[in-house]
Amino acid sequence: MEGIKEKFVVIGLGLIGGSLALDIKVKRANAIVYGIDKEEKHVEKALELGVIDVKGSIDELNNADWVIIAVPVDKTVGILVDVLDKINSNTIVFDVGSTKNHICEAIKNHTNRRNFIAAHPIAGTEFSGPEAALRDLFLERTNIICEVEKTAFIFQEKALQLFKEIGMRIRYMDPISHDKHIAYMSHLSHISSFMLGKTVIEEEKNERDIFDMAGSGFESTVRLAKSSPAMWTPIFRQNKEQVVKSLSEYINNLNAFKELLEQDKFDEVFKTLDETNRIKQILK
Amino acid sequence: MEGIKEKFVVIGLGLIGGSLALDIKVKRANAIVYGIDKEEKHVEKALELGVIDVKGSIDELNNADWVIIAVPVDKTVGILVDVLDKINSNTIVFDVGSTKNHICEAIKNHTNRRNFIAAHPIAGTEFSGPEAALRDLFLERTNIICEVEKTAFIFQEKALQLFKEIGMRIRYMDPISHDKHIAYMSHLSHISSFMLGKTVIEEEKNERDIFDMAGSGFESTVRLAKSSPAMWTPIFRQNKEQVVKSLSEYINNLNAFKELLEQDKFDEVFKTLDETNRIKQILK
Repeated sequence: MEGIKEKFVVIGLGLIGGSLALDIKVKRANAIVYGIDKEEKHVEKALELGVIDVKGSIDELNNADWVIIAVPVDKTVGILVDVLDKINSNTIVFDVGSTKNHICEAIKNHTNRRNFIAAHPIAGTEFSGPEAALRDLFLERTNIICEVEKTAFIFQEKALQLFKEIGMRIRYMDPISHDKHIAYMSHLSHISSFMLGKTVIEEEKNERDIFDMAGSGFESTVRLAKSSPAMWTPIFRQNKEQVVKSLSEYINNLNAFKELLEQDKFDEVFKTLDETNRIKQILK
Repeated sequence: MEGIKEKFVVIGLGLIGGSLALDIKVKRANAIVYGIDKEEKHVEKALELGVIDVKGSIDELNNADWVIIAVPVDKTVGILVDVLDKINSNTIVFDVGSTKNHICEAIKNHTNRRNFIAAHPIAGTEFSGPEAALRDLFLERTNIICEVEKTAFIFQEKALQLFKEIGMRIRYMDPISHDKHIAYMSHLSHISSFMLGKTVIEEEKNERDIFDMAGSGFESTVRLAKSSPAMWTPIFRQNKEQVVKSLSEYINNLNAFKELLEQDKFDEVFKTLDETNRIKQILK
């Protein structure tokens, strides 16, 4: 491969797509990264920041070695089908979306299913767009791969090598389990944070300077309320059933806790908090 | 004052008391910090770590220049009354608790009310005990002072000087407003985080390795669920009315959001998330 360029096409130049592009350029000296985005200004910004090397086109995929799809999940299926139609037999394609069942179902019978890896690197920040791209965003973060057995051995091997170079830890899961667990481990956190932000904004709308009272605790709990609605609305839609289930259980727990407070059962309040402290050991 | 030691007595050698002690020792070369804690092992650990200089005693306050009360809020009133009974007329006393109305009411008629400053430095981490003490924890953090007019001018002046040296920003507020706003800006975040932790632990209790899926988003939203139940239960008790009110509004918002999902009103989901993004500007 010496002297030969490895062609990466990144579709969606936001936080995740941009961060992958940055890492790939560092880890693979012979990589040339093409960028595609529906927003022309994102392409320009990504070029200016050195996130990508060249502006790409969806109609020039036939000589791509890799295609990475990093767009909001409601756009992924349409783009993925188009990409799988256009690639050659040696191209590896992966997505990075936070829902996996819908997409795995949608392309399960595609002729080029074997070229595709359904991936979910669990990493991010509350920021979006090419300016949000970060080096080493995926270092020691988990990347869930679904239905790995449906990807050809050679592409599994190559993709794992790339993911390893970027520093990801790999876990395998079926798409239904992925969507069920990620509702609790990620989607619910976003709703809890957005609604905390909403509640506080509503209450304090007539108050001046009250946000001077924001400590690091409030800031960390409300951080995800800064996330992109264009990214998160389609995630909640695609994973609606599991999200509603986790949200119902969360609301039940909040109601039960409110009742303990109202009934002055502070021994039980203590006990509940104390048991939940177990999260310390779990996340260690 | 050259050559003369300034005697600080810190009661409660946890995160806040310990961090104050560390900053005071750095900022005041002539300070000698006495430490008191109901747990003997905390006193020993604080000595070992250099958080305090000397083990103190509640019966030796008569020559103290400063007494700082940094214990859980259910213990504060009893200790504060005892301290105010024992100090001399030049001693400055302040607390650091997250509820202010109860304590201000309790000592409003004490002979030495003028020696006391009701303070709430809004800073912390999820850790507790003397090992959790940090230098510069209060740098650029807000310290709310309540009923400042009830403190003698000379003590106001001296305390402000100390708070400024430690790097705090000062805001003044009446105790009722403090408790109302802090319910939204701090206490509610803790409940939202604790219940998120509880919901996820309950769901995932039979799953192995699922916490590998925890991204930085979950970690930041659930961080406060690691906080000390001994500190937080009395806060919820003392500020019960405001906490229940903010919690009810939070639950109402979560229920309304769940209905939007259930009824497939994703345009409104988007709108809600988008409006809540305003927290970005607010917290800037």
